[in-house]
Amino acid sequence: MYYPSIHTKLVILLGNPLGHSYSALMHNHVFEKLNMDYCYWPVEVSAENLPTVFAGLTRMNVAGFNVTIPHKVRIIALLDEIDPLASVIGAVNTICIKEGRTRGYNTDGEGFLKALEAELDISTAGKNFFILGCGGAARAIAMTFAFHDAGKVFLCNRTISKAEKLTAEINEKIRPCAEVVPQISAEMTPALRTCQVLVNSTSVGMHPDEDRIPIDEALLFQELAVADIVYNPLMTRLLQAAQHTGCRIVNGLGMLVYQGAEAFKLWTGITPPVREMFAVLREGKKGT
Amino acid sequence: MYYPSIHTKLVILLGNPLGHSYSALMHNHVFEKLNMDYCYWPVEVSAENLPTVFAGLTRMNVAGFNVTIPHKVRIIALLDEIDPLASVIGAVNTICIKEGRTRGYNTDGEGFLKALEAELDISTAGKNFFILGCGGAARAIAMTFAFHDAGKVFLCNRTISKAEKLTAEINEKIRPCAEVVPQISAEMTPALRTCQVLVNSTSVGMHPDEDRIPIDEALLFQELAVADIVYNPLMTRLLQAAQHTGCRIVNGLGMLVYQGAEAFKLWTGITPPVREMFAVLREGKKGT
Repeated sequence: MYYPSIHTKLVILLGNPLGHSYSALMHNHVFEKLNMDYCYWPVEVSAENLPTVFAGLTRMNVAGFNVTIPHKVRIIALLDEIDPLASVIGAVNTICIKEGRTRGYNTDGEGFLKALEAELDISTAGKNFFILGCGGAARAIAMTFAFHDAGKVFLCNRTISKAEKLTAEINEKIRPCAEVVPQISAEMTPALRTCQVLVNSTSVGMHPDEDRIPIDEALLFQELAVADIVYNPLMTRLLQAAQHTGCRIVNGLGMLVYQGAEAFKLWTGITPPVREMFAVLREGKKGT
Repeated sequence: MYYPSIHTKLVILLGNPLGHSYSALMHNHVFEKLNMDYCYWPVEVSAENLPTVFAGLTRMNVAGFNVTIPHKVRIIALLDEIDPLASVIGAVNTICIKEGRTRGYNTDGEGFLKALEAELDISTAGKNFFILGCGGAARAIAMTFAFHDAGKVFLCNRTISKAEKLTAEINEKIRPCAEVVPQISAEMTPALRTCQVLVNSTSVGMHPDEDRIPIDEALLFQELAVADIVYNPLMTRLLQAAQHTGCRIVNGLGMLVYQGAEAFKLWTGITPPVREMFAVLREGKKGT
């Protein structure tokens, strides 16, 4: 058994509910592999108790935090400092404590970019992206694209007003590179044809609705890279259709692993072995 | 490696400094042996941060606490409820959380009594005890003796005013059974001769001062049982002298294990295997 000591550094995951956490599996596995005296601990906490729990933990031997639903926005009010990108996104998923001060980051979008870079060798600058959906994940990804000098970022959502609002925010706060596309095939095609990457940021296709697809597959074309944030199942119907069309694909594990790797670097200063992270997640997912 | 989940119950040790904690070793070993999803975690915390850290932890998945130097007294102000014996002692070393309410206990004295009972089959009621020293441990032990109907409790301390103060407190708050004995052999002998048990509650004889002894060994006699709270070394000079005189002896490991066993029962409702606790401590002490 693993015996924590006063030297053991904690990394805390704050959320509610948490259920089985893939992040705990992934990070504890790496801490063990690298023989680091760290422990990743998932803590379920209500919105009401968040300030008290957070204040207590920041005075313990804690290296940092992950923050997930539903606390990514409300945690900001409790931080000493915030990274510019996280501030623009308006959501924090990673916190470091350095010299007693808490600093918030958002590695969701960065993780997505790293996955594209590492798995498909696609850098962001100058490329055009087509994003399906307009929720929290889309917001982090789209803003990170804009932040890293993307060419165009097209936002396509069932409720068009949400896409308009996010578009305006990106264009005002970062750079004028975002554009709304109505969710109508005839209007999607011309925009999509200029893009290098299609991103599904919605939960369409996720277990138990595996047979759903977030876009008419006739719109796909071979030169497009297709990324899905859904990781359950790993091969969504969208990715199957894309592969069938001859597209290169990235599944949701990529974003999960790379957002974790970015967070890991922030907490520890060490670049973790992503191959190990993928391996333990594939293993862990089999068990669920 | 041990991976904590949202179901893992924490037991927190609060103190400062903590160094290598025998309690962590002991309790984590039992949690593992009994296949319980619990983790004992030592947390160093300053007096200043104690209220914040304690408030945060009580809103996490925490079953209870151990509290040690220097927080055993000041923790009381932060509790919802206190056990009557702990209240009289004025110090808390164990806390349970039941239905969101914190309740403080003191198992130091109880642990000492259990050790005497288990190892020497000596029950407290009606027996006379001679206690060397007047610090926190003496206070817990003497008051627990009085609480459990001891005949006489003799208190013998270098600074006699401290013994007088504790004696008065016991006689007022519990039962009129305590008596001061000046630390002068001629005055100690008659009291000691009526006693069944001699207790060293001082740190005299502890590493690195192994050659010191807290009482003139000529005062020992065969019918006396001799208990030492010092557990480093296990065989103090006092216990060696006692054994040489033909006395039955109890070393400091007994109190350490049984105060832990009482706390374990309070946190979990389960009676832990004390034999396992002794074994892992003997093993752990070799390593230090």
